[in-house]
Amino acid sequence: MRMGVLTSGGDCPGLNAVIRSVVHRATVDHGDEVIGFHDGWKGLLECDYRKLDLDAVGGILARGGTILGSSRVQPAHLRDGVERARSHVAELGLDAIIPIGGEGTLKAARLLSDAGLPIVGVPKTIDNDIAVTDVTFGFDTAVGVATEALDRLKTTAESHQRVMIVEVMGRHTGWIALHSGMAAGAHAIVVPERPFDIEELTRRVGERFSAGKKFAIVVVAEGAKPREGTMSFDAGGTDVYGHERFAGVARQLSLELERRLGKEARPVILGHVQRGGTPTAYDRVLATRFGWHAVEAAHRGDFGRMTALRGTDITLVPLADAVETLKTVPMERYDEVECVL
Amino acid sequence: MRMGVLTSGGDCPGLNAVIRSVVHRATVDHGDEVIGFHDGWKGLLECDYRKLDLDAVGGILARGGTILGSSRVQPAHLRDGVERARSHVAELGLDAIIPIGGEGTLKAARLLSDAGLPIVGVPKTIDNDIAVTDVTFGFDTAVGVATEALDRLKTTAESHQRVMIVEVMGRHTGWIALHSGMAAGAHAIVVPERPFDIEELTRRVGERFSAGKKFAIVVVAEGAKPREGTMSFDAGGTDVYGHERFAGVARQLSLELERRLGKEARPVILGHVQRGGTPTAYDRVLATRFGWHAVEAAHRGDFGRMTALRGTDITLVPLADAVETLKTVPMERYDEVECVL
Amino acid sequence: MRMGVLTSGGDCPGLNAVIRSVVHRATVDHGDEVIGFHDGWKGLLECDYRKLDLDAVGGILARGGTILGSSRVQPAHLRDGVERARSHVAELGLDAIIPIGGEGTLKAARLLSDAGLPIVGVPKTIDNDIAVTDVTFGFDTAVGVATEALDRLKTTAESHQRVMIVEVMGRHTGWIALHSGMAAGAHAIVVPERPFDIEELTRRVGERFSAGKKFAIVVVAEGAKPREGTMSFDAGGTDVYGHERFAGVARQLSLELERRLGKEARPVILGHVQRGGTPTAYDRVLATRFGWHAVEAAHRGDFGRMTALRGTDITLVPLADAVETLKTVPMERYDEVECVL
Amino acid sequence: MRMGVLTSGGDCPGLNAVIRSVVHRATVDHGDEVIGFHDGWKGLLECDYRKLDLDAVGGILARGGTILGSSRVQPAHLRDGVERARSHVAELGLDAIIPIGGEGTLKAARLLSDAGLPIVGVPKTIDNDIAVTDVTFGFDTAVGVATEALDRLKTTAESHQRVMIVEVMGRHTGWIALHSGMAAGAHAIVVPERPFDIEELTRRVGERFSAGKKFAIVVVAEGAKPREGTMSFDAGGTDVYGHERFAGVARQLSLELERRLGKEARPVILGHVQRGGTPTAYDRVLATRFGWHAVEAAHRGDFGRMTALRGTDITLVPLADAVETLKTVPMERYDEVECVL
Repeated sequence: MRMGVLTSGGDCPGLNAVIRSVVHRATVDHGDEVIGFHDGWKGLLECDYRKLDLDAVGGILARGGTILGSSRVQPAHLRDGVERARSHVAELGLDAIIPIGGEGTLKAARLLSDAGLPIVGVPKTIDNDIAVTDVTFGFDTAVGVATEALDRLKTTAESHQRVMIVEVMGRHTGWIALHSGMAAGAHAIVVPERPFDIEELTRRVGERFSAGKKFAIVVVAEGAKPREGTMSFDAGGTDVYGHERFAGVARQLSLELERRLGKEARPVILGHVQRGGTPTAYDRVLATRFGWHAVEAAHRGDFGRMTALRGTDITLVPLADAVETLKTVPMERYDEVECVL
Repeated sequence: MRMGVLTSGGDCPGLNAVIRSVVHRATVDHGDEVIGFHDGWKGLLECDYRKLDLDAVGGILARGGTILGSSRVQPAHLRDGVERARSHVAELGLDAIIPIGGEGTLKAARLLSDAGLPIVGVPKTIDNDIAVTDVTFGFDTAVGVATEALDRLKTTAESHQRVMIVEVMGRHTGWIALHSGMAAGAHAIVVPERPFDIEELTRRVGERFSAGKKFAIVVVAEGAKPREGTMSFDAGGTDVYGHERFAGVARQLSLELERRLGKEARPVILGHVQRGGTPTAYDRVLATRFGWHAVEAAHRGDFGRMTALRGTDITLVPLADAVETLKTVPMERYDEVECVL
Repeated sequence: MRMGVLTSGGDCPGLNAVIRSVVHRATVDHGDEVIGFHDGWKGLLECDYRKLDLDAVGGILARGGTILGSSRVQPAHLRDGVERARSHVAELGLDAIIPIGGEGTLKAARLLSDAGLPIVGVPKTIDNDIAVTDVTFGFDTAVGVATEALDRLKTTAESHQRVMIVEVMGRHTGWIALHSGMAAGAHAIVVPERPFDIEELTRRVGERFSAGKKFAIVVVAEGAKPREGTMSFDAGGTDVYGHERFAGVARQLSLELERRLGKEARPVILGHVQRGGTPTAYDRVLATRFGWHAVEAAHRGDFGRMTALRGTDITLVPLADAVETLKTVPMERYDEVECVL
Repeated sequence: MRMGVLTSGGDCPGLNAVIRSVVHRATVDHGDEVIGFHDGWKGLLECDYRKLDLDAVGGILARGGTILGSSRVQPAHLRDGVERARSHVAELGLDAIIPIGGEGTLKAARLLSDAGLPIVGVPKTIDNDIAVTDVTFGFDTAVGVATEALDRLKTTAESHQRVMIVEVMGRHTGWIALHSGMAAGAHAIVVPERPFDIEELTRRVGERFSAGKKFAIVVVAEGAKPREGTMSFDAGGTDVYGHERFAGVARQLSLELERRLGKEARPVILGHVQRGGTPTAYDRVLATRFGWHAVEAAHRGDFGRMTALRGTDITLVPLADAVETLKTVPMERYDEVECVL
């Protein structure tokens, strides 16, 4: 067979492990040829690619980022995007395309699949918000980085009798906040799924100090918002250069808590360190298995699907199911953590 | 309710996280009392315990080891072990006992449960060999430590054009070898489930050098053995002090490969570092959830069972099922890795 | 002897290692008594302390923060601060006081020493800005944390073809920026000692992209400022609650570079993670040696001095010398790094 | 100028950082040409090399090992070694050679320098045994790896009430044992410089248990030996394949202590993980500075010398001084640690 692989959307630890795994399985075990498109769908649309052999993927298993580059370009952005993709696939004689990406990428994958292209998707999201798979690679690394930072911040918060408000990734879902907060024993966790009540949060942190504790750690997902009417809040929007980025729930919460509690509060925004760098062993194993199974699916002609983890098994699920809903934190997971607001 | 918790068997990162979680959920949310038995079943048999409140479990979430101590003593070791356990439970007015441990501990738990004691088990094993749960805490940390070591060894192997034979834990199962080997891109993985053929291993490593590569990494589980008749092998047995420990598959393999290949080969035995120290975020989350659900099970009167991970859910499964078979690496997992012998 | 120890000023990895070392050396080897004042000078001024024996310092060597707490209170803040310190020292029968702290703390130490109190200081600063010692503990850990973050950011910057502007600690000196930037191979380093020229910075980063590189990493110390007249710059000042904290050189630089280069630029502010958590082995060794030598100095009656590292030796230097000047990055160190502006 | 660089002897984190630094400084700032010899002196003797430009050293700063390979071949091993080196230098038109290596390499460097070749050495040793420099790169990483392992082993030792005997590198000197032992708070440190008395060691560890402590950590350098007559000891020698490697002080100590104390004792041999993998920030900075200064020395014609760290300065010292004596742990450093035998 002849396969094309591409990585699209935000950076995610484990992308290179998938690429490497696809190349190993396809070329060594099946004798396939593999090409890699540059910068996501853009590479497919512009026929910009390179050959991927064993040497090309040497030493990348533990490396963050993606050797193929990425972009947020999608076929639907171009009027003739689907047509161009189709003609390039034909031109290059590709028997399978393996796009690795998040929700947007998988939607595009479905579009192309519906248009008849032979596609096996591989889900990727540090946010853990893709449905129909227990988890994808990248999430474990992000949680690990956030947890290590929280571990560090605890001692500094304690020494200075402070509240630390730590903002982690998660625009729409609170998975990273929930897991890193559980792992580090945070005293309050604020997630986008549940608009928070600033009075309730103040009360909870305040009780901790009343009980003689010397510090508190609040983990807040970047997309968290206050319940309407409980606190004035600048939800961001675009700045003067058109970028939606400087709102900052942690900074606003920090000011508000300081004012209400009379205790020093400090915001820490972890930012992009959560999505770069060496993946954890967990993510490398999962990414490697996804790559392997994507190749197998292609050889079985099992197109229009994506790899998914179910328990300890890798299965293939319809792309259609994957993009229907965002996987938010279910109610019963909140119950497990005393401190989710 | 009044609950007793204990940790038994080998050390495992995450034990303290379970203890903390049990105490938090039980005392804060249910108003229960919790005591902790010292040194595993020994504490129950000798009525040696202490009260566990929030202060007692402060700051232990990320700490390796167990604040309660452990031992390998089991009720069945004493003629009247079950009776003693029963009378101490009555004496202390315990409504539930939560033993945290591996296969041996869970077998003992089943024995006591069959004898009518109110038990909810929590499985623990860095080896990942307990059936009916996808995984338990401790394994992810062990794999992480082994993978980091393998990452380090790669560069030194490469600089010196060597074969590195790295021995990881796994007396009966190859899970740590499989996962760390996959995560680090090892060139051969040797597991106890499949006696290895030294000629096949030599051939595989040799081909790598023939292909111009400058080094090779072989991961071997401590319990791996050669296929009969293919290589002389000292399987260990007891030393002069009665300890079964100095055999060393890595050392023997290293000598044999060096002799056969004419390349420097060096053994590295990772040993106890795999089971100590700070647990990964993954293990802390799993351990915390197990503790929470064990308390809930106790409150529901759901005894004779243990917590288990199934996909992303925590469920309760009969202790009987848990101890029936050892969970070995299934055949299809070998297929995913080119290099498992 | 009877000694009092205290930690004052900002949190710094290694404080607990000094405390532990003082207690070990003093009590085990000399048979001294040691007390620890709470919350820095505040504890001395308010006679708030506790006894420190071996048990009190068990398990703290590798822990961040300070078990004694800290504050920014200084004797000179109170009209009768020196008098109160003196009378408490007499009351408690102290033969030596060992304050551990940064520039402000050492100035206070000098004040009290000049007033006749028996003081041996231990310097502490993650910023590396204390003169007369090669380095102090805390700096190596801060540089390590910053470097690890830079390593992670590189892959994400590369995948997205971005400029990352990473703000590290250093209000007055660029040591952390210089060392972490060197260690991670940053493409530009901006330090407070040299006001930067935005055009020069733009040119340098731009040349990198012109040469076909796909990303750039700029490390900037929080106290860096543009050369006057080259760029509009909000130097911060106080916010509505009186806190001087939201200015943010990285955010301003990021907007400006994005505008000038037409490339995505993203700020990352590492913040408090740099000063919390487990110290590196280097910092633990240095802190332990400082504690040991402070006790020895006290026994020799060598007061009015502080411990210092000179090469591989620990020496004692006059407090007066230590606080005279801030140790800034010397000119010749810039020459070693092509990319310091 | 035209320069040749080579790495010789055992692997050491930071080698690549030196190579990269030499290439950056020489080619970018001076417009020099740089070639790299393969596999140490072997490459010079066999005229086996490649051109090193910026691309060749891209991304290697944080990578362990050496992209040039290494070997233990030395010019003196060949009858006409010096002559061959001289003729290849002439043939290739080299104005300077920068060998990076340990004691053996520097001795060879001196030999060639005495024979008139233009040499600037860069010292390298994880053991910290090279005189006339405060420290070299590699040592900090090795100590860091050993300390992290010791941190992990503490919790497992405590849970099982064991003595852990941890063998670290150091055939002739105890620097790694001393620093990692100090950093991790080991209870006894055994170094090659002082043959140990097994009775004294037993007494010390025994007192710890008598005092109610539940575990003990003993750090022992691989080259440590008992004082004559105090304990039967197999000093190793060569095995059947001619390799001197299976003696194992930790294993022997562990058996002996277990027998004498009646407590479980377990050996852990850290081995090659100490010399591989990503260097610490400290080592990367030092290695980078060494490379920079080596190039400068070459441009000044300052040959027959090697780079050295003195305090915070990089200086050049005569090769002759560097190789005269091994730098052992000085007496006064033992005094700082209660637990060095």
